Amino acid sequence: MNALLNIEILASLLVGLGALECLPALVAWIYGEPALPYLLSALPPLVFGLPLLFTARAPDRRMRPRDGFLVVAVAWGMVSLFGSLPYILTGTLGPADALFESISGFTTTGSTVMTDIEASPRGVLFWRALSQWLGGMGIIVLAVAVLPLLGIGGMQLFQAEVPGPVAGKLTPRIADTARRLWFIYLGFTVTVVVALWLAGMGFFDAVCHAFTTVATGGFSTRNASIGAFNSPLIEWLVIVFMFAGGINFVLHYRILTGHIRQVSRDEELRFYVVLAVVFTLLCWWTLARSGAPDGPRSAAFQVVSIMTTTGYGTRNFEAWPHLTHFLMLTLLLTGGMAGSTSGGIKTMRLLIGARALRGMVSHLRHSRAVHSLHYAGRTVPDGVVSGVLLFFLAYLGLAILGAIAVASAGYDPVTSLSAGLTAVGNFGPGTGEIGPTDNFGHFPAYVKLTLGFCMIAGRLEIFTVLALLDPNFWRN
Amino acid sequence: MNALLNIEILASLLVGLGALECLPALVAWIYGEPALPYLLSALPPLVFGLPLLFTARAPDRRMRPRDGFLVVAVAWGMVSLFGSLPYILTGTLGPADALFESISGFTTTGSTVMTDIEASPRGVLFWRALSQWLGGMGIIVLAVAVLPLLGIGGMQLFQAEVPGPVAGKLTPRIADTARRLWFIYLGFTVTVVVALWLAGMGFFDAVCHAFTTVATGGFSTRNASIGAFNSPLIEWLVIVFMFAGGINFVLHYRILTGHIRQVSRDEELRFYVVLAVVFTLLCWWTLARSGAPDGPRSAAFQVVSIMTTTGYGTRNFEAWPHLTHFLMLTLLLTGGMAGSTSGGIKTMRLLIGARALRGMVSHLRHSRAVHSLHYAGRTVPDGVVSGVLLFFLAYLGLAILGAIAVASAGYDPVTSLSAGLTAVGNFGPGTGEIGPTDNFGHFPAYVKLTLGFCMIAGRLEIFTVLALLDPNFWRN
Repeated sequence: MNALLNIEILASLLVGLGALECLPALVAWIYGEPALPYLLSALPPLVFGLPLLFTARAPDRRMRPRDGFLVVAVAWGMVSLFGSLPYILTGTLGPADALFESISGFTTTGSTVMTDIEASPRGVLFWRALSQWLGGMGIIVLAVAVLPLLGIGGMQLFQAEVPGPVAGKLTPRIADTARRLWFIYLGFTVTVVVALWLAGMGFFDAVCHAFTTVATGGFSTRNASIGAFNSPLIEWLVIVFMFAGGINFVLHYRILTGHIRQVSRDEELRFYVVLAVVFTLLCWWTLARSGAPDGPRSAAFQVVSIMTTTGYGTRNFEAWPHLTHFLMLTLLLTGGMAGSTSGGIKTMRLLIGARALRGMVSHLRHSRAVHSLHYAGRTVPDGVVSGVLLFFLAYLGLAILGAIAVASAGYDPVTSLSAGLTAVGNFGPGTGEIGPTDNFGHFPAYVKLTLGFCMIAGRLEIFTVLALLDPNFWRN
Repeated sequence: MNALLNIEILASLLVGLGALECLPALVAWIYGEPALPYLLSALPPLVFGLPLLFTARAPDRRMRPRDGFLVVAVAWGMVSLFGSLPYILTGTLGPADALFESISGFTTTGSTVMTDIEASPRGVLFWRALSQWLGGMGIIVLAVAVLPLLGIGGMQLFQAEVPGPVAGKLTPRIADTARRLWFIYLGFTVTVVVALWLAGMGFFDAVCHAFTTVATGGFSTRNASIGAFNSPLIEWLVIVFMFAGGINFVLHYRILTGHIRQVSRDEELRFYVVLAVVFTLLCWWTLARSGAPDGPRSAAFQVVSIMTTTGYGTRNFEAWPHLTHFLMLTLLLTGGMAGSTSGGIKTMRLLIGARALRGMVSHLRHSRAVHSLHYAGRTVPDGVVSGVLLFFLAYLGLAILGAIAVASAGYDPVTSLSAGLTAVGNFGPGTGEIGPTDNFGHFPAYVKLTLGFCMIAGRLEIFTVLALLDPNFWRN
């Protein structure tokens, strides 16, 4: 293991976090709120990070897979921990709640423990939104540049997607990819800010919602989420931007570099579009069938919000007919495209799973003939297919473990299962006692921490975290 | 396809069914009930079956995998259809209800549409129990002798388990295996009848409950199921017999032929025992923790009843604490051993899935090193592992489809999901509006038929039925 390099990377993350914690101080100062708590929050990461950054200079710049697993998991945990300080020092939340909110932010989950969001200081609301935006930024690079090299359940298929140096040395590749994708991420965010502002949202709300839309995070500055603005235009815009946030950022890059034709042939994109359209129509039809007053906009909003694991709301879908409600719950198992900021299982894995199932069934009668699976014009190695299928298993297993923790605190099966699924899938609200009109504040601390663990594991595609739990990982 | 042989097999099944439908007539006659409806029920299968049996003599006695898929699926559908006649002709149930009850019987599911079971004629109760016993008989042979040769999700591992001629020609192997296993099945049933009778159950109840215990079916002659007898001795006996019914019948055969040592080393058996013990202790602990009046017997009964997918009840587990309730629901995903009469995913698949996950995780850091999976002392081919993992996917997918049908009739998510899971897993009762104190009678006909399809597909390990839905299956 290249310990020195790992420490260097983590130290620079800490310093960056400390610097960024000064931004909410600026926001607080502008709006006449006390800025000191944010500046104090910035101290610990800087105090820990700066000395390490200046002393730890790794001569060996190579990162091996083992380093990758460790750094990625520690990074998310560490950033969430230090990122919880603004909530605590402003007196907004207690320690366990603050950690939950911070993890929920940096994993772009969007589950909240806050009862009255509008009563919170603007600095806190800004930090909440910023944490999701930063988390989304981390995810894109993770998904496109790091996870493929770690061989995580199907992400290997991305290996050839991004131009740049391959394998062995992660660092130049990451830096290169990061530059390209962050440029797009930033441009996308600015576009959303301007669009929402022009559509009538206040500037502060526009910035915060742009952060959490692009990151498909879902933290809002309003108690009633996007529904609070009561504007069909804003709702349609948010639908489009959430949908775009659920698209692989490599495709965004290709569109911008003029390869539109190539993008339109992308199999996962087609599947993602079809899934969204079919579920919107189904949802709309089931609403119309039961005479509910909600039209196509509400249906599209909810479907895209769940599919991309954003978690914004305009309507209380728990009050919708049972069939619509159930369809929404099955969407918790999808997720957006791999390489996007969304969570969940991801459409790429669903596509590969469906093809593997189809291939297996149609070859059964030939008594175990070998069949190969194609994706994006290439044959998918058997090991990758197993990786994808094992991901489903791990995903469900982790959700059930989370659900057992919730049930052990005396919650009903629906609340429990939806809590587990929403945490692992980084969605946000659940159903039952954590539905769109409730929050996670009433859970005991141990449940909050367990769900926090599920969020981080889900965000890091589970295997990254499971690898660290394997005793063999720590042997040489 | 060997159409003539397929017709011959199905015709002999019909004739057998017709003959067996005379048994409830005998029971009715003994208890002074009208016997005519049962005799009339026996006519259609005999009228269709006998002429076919005498004319269709296939010169070619070879069965190919394709024939296997077709015969097995048609057999279960056909027998369920003709087996519904006694319910209709005695005036006990309408056509859709009768078909549901019959499918639930022959698939050893045990879900019922009957509101007052004790008010039904003894002949009907006997036929209900007998249908499960016959279904269980079919399953054992299917699982041990037919499915392995069709290459169904992991069942290939059984290929070397049973002595006898291999591959290509199914018929001699089936006949040979059937003889050995049915002998055990019969002996087991007689033992249970005698034990329950000596423990204080009436003779009629003892026979019916022996049928449905050995088949892990779960149809009872009482509204309160096994709880009606109010006898700790009977409850303990049923726990032991359900547990034995969930054990691979090849192991029963080995025990009887003196290979006890070999059996005690069986990995799946050990896993099955550990799972049952761990869940019983967990269930008992969660009950004790919340001060519930139920002790270890109730915990063991419920755990074994769910794990083996029998579905008997002694207590209303819906009134248990949420954690216990949730643990019971997760048990719906297990099932007993492969090669037993139980349904569900099966412990063999869980074991292989867990090992594949473990193997994948511990090899991640070696950047995609090849690792092989061992089971029962042999290396499991990659294709078999994928088959097992795809089975999980298909299982869950089918359960969700069933659940959507239920939700479309206006039922809540818990009722819907539990209905889908209980049908695909051939368990019996669900939770919510189909809990242990309710029944399936209030579902509309289309929901009953959809769940009936799920039961048959689940019983036939899903792939068997999926293969028939593939258009390529029907091309030459």
